[in-house]
Amino acid sequence: RIDADRLWDALMEMAKIGPGVAGGNNRQSLTDADNEGRKLFQAWCEAAGMSMGVDAMGNMFMTRPGTDPDALPVYVGSHLDTQPTGGKYDGVLGVLGALELVRTLNDLNIRTKRPIVVTNWTNEEGTRFAPAMLASGVFAGVHDLDWAYERKDAEGRTVGDELKRIGWVGEEEVGARKMHAMFELHIEQGPILEAEGKDIGVVTHGQGLWWLEVTVTGKESHTGSTPMPMRRNAGLGMARMTELVHEIAMKHQPRAVGAIGHCDVHPNSRNVIPGKVVFTVDFRSPDRETLDAMKAEFEARVPGIAEDLGLTATVEAVGHFDPVTFDETCVKAVRNAAEKLGYSHMDIISGAGHDACWVNKVAPTAMIMCPCVDGLSHNEAEEITREWAQAGADVLLHAVLEAAEI
Amino acid sequence: RIDADRLWDALMEMAKIGPGVAGGNNRQSLTDADNEGRKLFQAWCEAAGMSMGVDAMGNMFMTRPGTDPDALPVYVGSHLDTQPTGGKYDGVLGVLGALELVRTLNDLNIRTKRPIVVTNWTNEEGTRFAPAMLASGVFAGVHDLDWAYERKDAEGRTVGDELKRIGWVGEEEVGARKMHAMFELHIEQGPILEAEGKDIGVVTHGQGLWWLEVTVTGKESHTGSTPMPMRRNAGLGMARMTELVHEIAMKHQPRAVGAIGHCDVHPNSRNVIPGKVVFTVDFRSPDRETLDAMKAEFEARVPGIAEDLGLTATVEAVGHFDPVTFDETCVKAVRNAAEKLGYSHMDIISGAGHDACWVNKVAPTAMIMCPCVDGLSHNEAEEITREWAQAGADVLLHAVLEAAEI
Ligand SMILES: NC(=O)NCCC(=O)O
Ligand SMILES: NC(=O)NCCC(=O)O
Repeated sequence: RIDADRLWDALMEMAKIGPGVAGGNNRQSLTDADNEGRKLFQAWCEAAGMSMGVDAMGNMFMTRPGTDPDALPVYVGSHLDTQPTGGKYDGVLGVLGALELVRTLNDLNIRTKRPIVVTNWTNEEGTRFAPAMLASGVFAGVHDLDWAYERKDAEGRTVGDELKRIGWVGEEEVGARKMHAMFELHIEQGPILEAEGKDIGVVTHGQGLWWLEVTVTGKESHTGSTPMPMRRNAGLGMARMTELVHEIAMKHQPRAVGAIGHCDVHPNSRNVIPGKVVFTVDFRSPDRETLDAMKAEFEARVPGIAEDLGLTATVEAVGHFDPVTFDETCVKAVRNAAEKLGYSHMDIISGAGHDACWVNKVAPTAMIMCPCVDGLSHNEAEEITREWAQAGADVLLHAVLEAAEI
Repeated sequence: RIDADRLWDALMEMAKIGPGVAGGNNRQSLTDADNEGRKLFQAWCEAAGMSMGVDAMGNMFMTRPGTDPDALPVYVGSHLDTQPTGGKYDGVLGVLGALELVRTLNDLNIRTKRPIVVTNWTNEEGTRFAPAMLASGVFAGVHDLDWAYERKDAEGRTVGDELKRIGWVGEEEVGARKMHAMFELHIEQGPILEAEGKDIGVVTHGQGLWWLEVTVTGKESHTGSTPMPMRRNAGLGMARMTELVHEIAMKHQPRAVGAIGHCDVHPNSRNVIPGKVVFTVDFRSPDRETLDAMKAEFEARVPGIAEDLGLTATVEAVGHFDPVTFDETCVKAVRNAAEKLGYSHMDIISGAGHDACWVNKVAPTAMIMCPCVDGLSHNEAEEITREWAQAGADVLLHAVLEAAEI
């Protein structure tokens, strides 16, 4: 078993970097706070006897050597970046749980045949730079490196420039590493495990996603002196499309979700009818057909809504992943570990995207989930118990041990 | 008649200060560009023989002396501040048309009995600091000076601090001046005069307004892993309230308008369900009962919309003026001037709020409107013709002459 107090201390220590405004974190990707978090993580790993490799996307690979020099390593990790108003555990638990696993093996003087590589993936959240899971996506060959470098934040700064600025452009070619397997521990970010009273979610599948960026164009004009019939109100267009997203997601219950998280209203002045609105729709489903049907229905109905209001609208896909089926052997290793340790568990579908979803394309992969209070995540009030963290990291330890072989 | 070319040159010269991104202007109140515009206006007025007075709200009063030292002055002016994506004429035509009127009197060596005071009112637009017509409102005794000083922009800077920073806190007590009458020339900012083929709008009334700031609170959570029934989506709440504003305004056609120009979504991240949205509703009508009925219906129906979605909502009035009836004598002076000069004209209701609407509370006041292309305003593409500017300033000249007496 891992040392839950040590793990908890590490979580609380990391949470001091890039504090939020309400007890959580704002440690967005490629900010100065991200750099600080990375340095602390590097120092901890090196103190635990690991050596660092960094690839050209800034992905951090901390290696604990194995006894067989020819054996492919087992990877284990997640991400240290957070949402702008994020929690202390989303991603962080998976990285520091992996570090704790190595610290435990060190304490017990256990050597594994395969090296264990604790990993921190760059820009998982996708909130500063879309899409999410950017660097694991490049690693898995889904995105080009140059394309990833060109992604821009709201101020127009690029991933490439910001990675250079904070000093984390590594020498390694992205995706060159071969993996025996990869495991990721993550908080559920949803309410199911807590409601079912289970310690552990054995993640068998992941939802697919479409992010659709919609640009609605009307005409800026005066809110007071423009008669109602002459208005081309892009804000009203967005309101109807927001309702449409909701309607489409409700139609496919319970195997679908949909919402709009981000919007930009132009010129955003109290007495100007919005002339342009840009927003991103987030549709998800574990079923590929449902996922694509939602996108298709939205795209089919947007032009009619726009036309009714004298607007034009364009829809562009800015993020996508297919529903994922995780590797059977890896999933079994997770289930066996929970079983062996006596933790209550259930099979679960991941509602969120994770680095593991991309890595699964190039290596046998599985995920472990632990509950979070009220299913709340992407919120500074995100919370877990020390017991849940313990259970998750214990299962991670034993699943990794099964794969890494003693 | 005024010199239309000289007026046009002045308009184009002023438009060089605080240029927009699409041919218009961004010369928002109390910015460095506002200061620059004020200085240019001051220099022009002083060159035309006027002397400056400035009050504690930064309102600029440029006096051309009259022949009777005891006669109350006639005021004439508007505002030089613009929307963030504003045009070259909204407000500016009224200030520079007044300057042109004085230049014309100088050319013709005409002295009036009453002094003429060309005025630039501070922060008419209200886009950086709500409410609109702030400084004329203080002048008219509607707002306290201290309250006005405390108004904040989006970055938290106050009117008081910014006025000091750009150097325009004057010595005069706000509202101490007594007026014989006040005239304001303004572009219509709507489509009626152009559609009716009239040169001049004789403004008999002004619409009243309610600005309602709505705060919708839900719960930030993950767009992927939060099941639909567990969501408390403040963005969806705002969408339904946007539709409600539209529905209420449509119900009272044609004597009502309503829209939402400004919103702030929190945390505004693609994969976070909005936990909080703040937006401002703009309701207007020339009928007091209609205006208040719209506000009342909105306030009555918001709680139900919020409750349906597990949200809470508060509504706060952040701007208000009653419908206005302008002074009969002043209005007649405008109508007479148009008549005498042979300009086609019609009575009209102002759709927008104007400094004249507040001043009308403390002095006999009237407004003159000229058409603008496509009724477009609060848009960088706002346009007028030289002929419309000429007609408006000619009528202003003769209305002011009637009031100021030769
Ligand atoms: N786990 C997580 O929040 N990842 C970000 C990508 C997503 O929105 O699913
Ligand atoms: N004329 C004008 O646009 N004034 C600003 C106040 C309003 O929105 O009516």
